[in-house]
Parts: sequence; structure tokens; C-alpha cells
Amino acid sequence: MPHIDLPNHLPGIASAFAFRPETAKPMRDLAHILLFEPGPDASLSSRDRELIASYVSTRNNCFFCKTSHGAAAASHSGGSPELVASVCSNPATADISEKLKALLAIAAHVQGDPKSVSSAQIAAARTEGATELEIHDTVLIAAAFCMYNRYVDGLATFQPREPEMYQAMGKHLAKQGYRESAAS
Amino acid sequence: MPHIDLPNHLPGIASAFAFRPETAKPMRDLAHILLFEPGPDASLSSRDRELIASYVSTRNNCFFCKTSHGAAAASHSGGSPELVASVCSNPATADISEKLKALLAIAAHVQGDPKSVSSAQIAAARTEGATELEIHDTVLIAAAFCMYNRYVDGLATFQPREPEMYQAMGKHLAKQGYRESAAS
Repeated sequence: MPHIDLPNHLPGIASAFAFRPETAKPMRDLAHILLFEPGPDASLSSRDRELIASYVSTRNNCFFCKTSHGAAAASHSGGSPELVASVCSNPATADISEKLKALLAIAAHVQGDPKSVSSAQIAAARTEGATELEIHDTVLIAAAFCMYNRYVDGLATFQPREPEMYQAMGKHLAKQGYRESAAS
Repeated sequence: MPHIDLPNHLPGIASAFAFRPETAKPMRDLAHILLFEPGPDASLSSRDRELIASYVSTRNNCFFCKTSHGAAAASHSGGSPELVASVCSNPATADISEKLKALLAIAAHVQGDPKSVSSAQIAAARTEGATELEIHDTVLIAAAFCMYNRYVDGLATFQPREPEMYQAMGKHLAKQGYRESAAS
């Protein structure tokens, strides 16, 4: 049961967004820019950015976020539930680019201890073709999901276990982004 | 030295905001609402909300954020550098309300492991007079600073050590809020 009086017909972060629409707006805007909109120059695909979000949420053990963003990653072009599971289990052996593997390694350090991100990890990502913007966005996606995950779990939001709900949510997010309700 | 090519005349999060203005806007808006604007009903003072931000940033060992938000807390009515130091060192013995002590205990759990926030902690905060909104905002401030702190440290931003810069920044933030550059 949620720790505070959240609207009980809404799941996960949607219930917290409905409780406090003032803070929901910038939080939705940030997710929309980071995960959905094309970057200002050549940048990561939405699929790849959702994979980073899902991977970080998995490391934070946030069921709602890892499942909804995993479903969004699977719904984007080139995504599948099998790919998401493989990335979240072990990026090193997943069927993704070496660039994305190097960025996911950075994301893991940001999630755990951001001071442990090393120059060698950054150099490795650059060697695989990562741009300054892609490295920036990787760090910020990882940091932002340390917020979203804690918001969802720190309030003990209702997190349904039915896969169908997350599949529908993932399709919606992959098509529409985040500026509307994540639960609609 | 920063991991990516950030503007080198700007400190901490200001350099990252200048690098990516698209994501800076919602991140500034969120801080402005959470820390500066009056809440939609009786809610925590800006001093108390900045104390939560500074306490969480101290626990995350983020020098730039703990020092700038500590300076902002000290600049608000009822704040002082001694009070900030005392709260960040041990809220239980600081000269603050029992309500704020109970909320800081919740914030510590959100920062560490959000699933460890207990019903007993929430009940204790309610007993001391905390509203639903105050509990919500405490959880979200703690969660949001797990993002800001990781953004600042995950990019290895330049974090000056001169106290004067943070004192000036704190005064500015306490007066103007976050919708302008944090470094101005």
C-alpha cells in the first residue's frame, strides 16, 4: 500500500504524477527529451536510450520502471523482449553495438558511485564512436533513473504484476513519448 | 577535469546545464518548484527543503551540491551555516523541529534504499504534523538529489573549493530560485 494518499486507480509513477501535477510536468518533460525526442545532433536511438533506462532501473531493482521502460525499448524499432532481458542481465554478452556496451558500463558506475566513472571508460566509449552528447545523455539518463526509481519505490506506489499492462504502456510510450500520462 | 567538453568557466551543474540547455530547463523547473516556490497548501519552508537537499547531497558526498544548497539553506530566514553543519552531521541532535527530523529520516532511506522507507517512519512523521504533501515532497527532494548529485559527479564537473563562491550562490538561490543559471 502506498505510503501516502495516492490515487489508487493509477499504477507506479502515474499515481505520484497525479498527486503533484506541478512536479510531474518537468519530470515528464525531462523523460521526453532524454528518451523520446531526437537529440540535437546524431545521437542514440530511442531504443538505445530506453535500454539504458531499463538497465539502470534493473540495477535499482525498481519493478515498475524496469518493466515499463523495458517494454518501451522492446516496442521501438530493433527492440524485442529477448534483447531487453539480455541487456538487463549482462550487457557484455547482449546483441548490441560495442558503443552501447561502453555507454552501459558508464551508466552502471553512475548508478552505483558516480565518482567511480573513469577516464578509461570515457575513452573506451569514444573509441567506439560515442559523441560528447551521447556520453552526456548516458550519464543523465542513469542519474535521472536514480530519481524516478526512488520516487516510485520511496512512496511504495502500487505496481501491478500483469505483463499486459506494461506491454500496452511500452507501446504507447514508444509512439507518443512522455508528455502525456505514462498510464494512459 | 570534466569527462566531456563542458564550458570550463562554469562550476558544477551550471557547466552541464550550459552544455545541454534542453534538459537544463526541466531540471531547473523541478528544483524551483521543489525548493523555492511555496507549496500548494501549508508546506515546508524553503529553508527546510534546502536542508533536506543539503543533507541528501552530504550523504551522496557531492561537494558542489551540498555546499551550494547548504549556503542556500543558510541564507533563508532562520538558517545559518552552523545549523546546516549540524543537520548534515546528525539531524537527531540539530536545533530543528521534530517534524523535520522525522522527514530527514525518511530522506535518508530514500537516498540509500527507497524500499526501506517504513510505514513506522511515515507514521512518525504524521504524528509530528507532517502532511501528505510534505511527505511527498521530502521523498521527491531526496530522489531528485540522487539525480543532481550523480549528474554533477558522474561528469566530473569542475567544483571550486572557495567558500565565497558558494555563499554568493546560496544568497542568489535563496532570493531568486532556480529558473535562472545557478552560477549567476
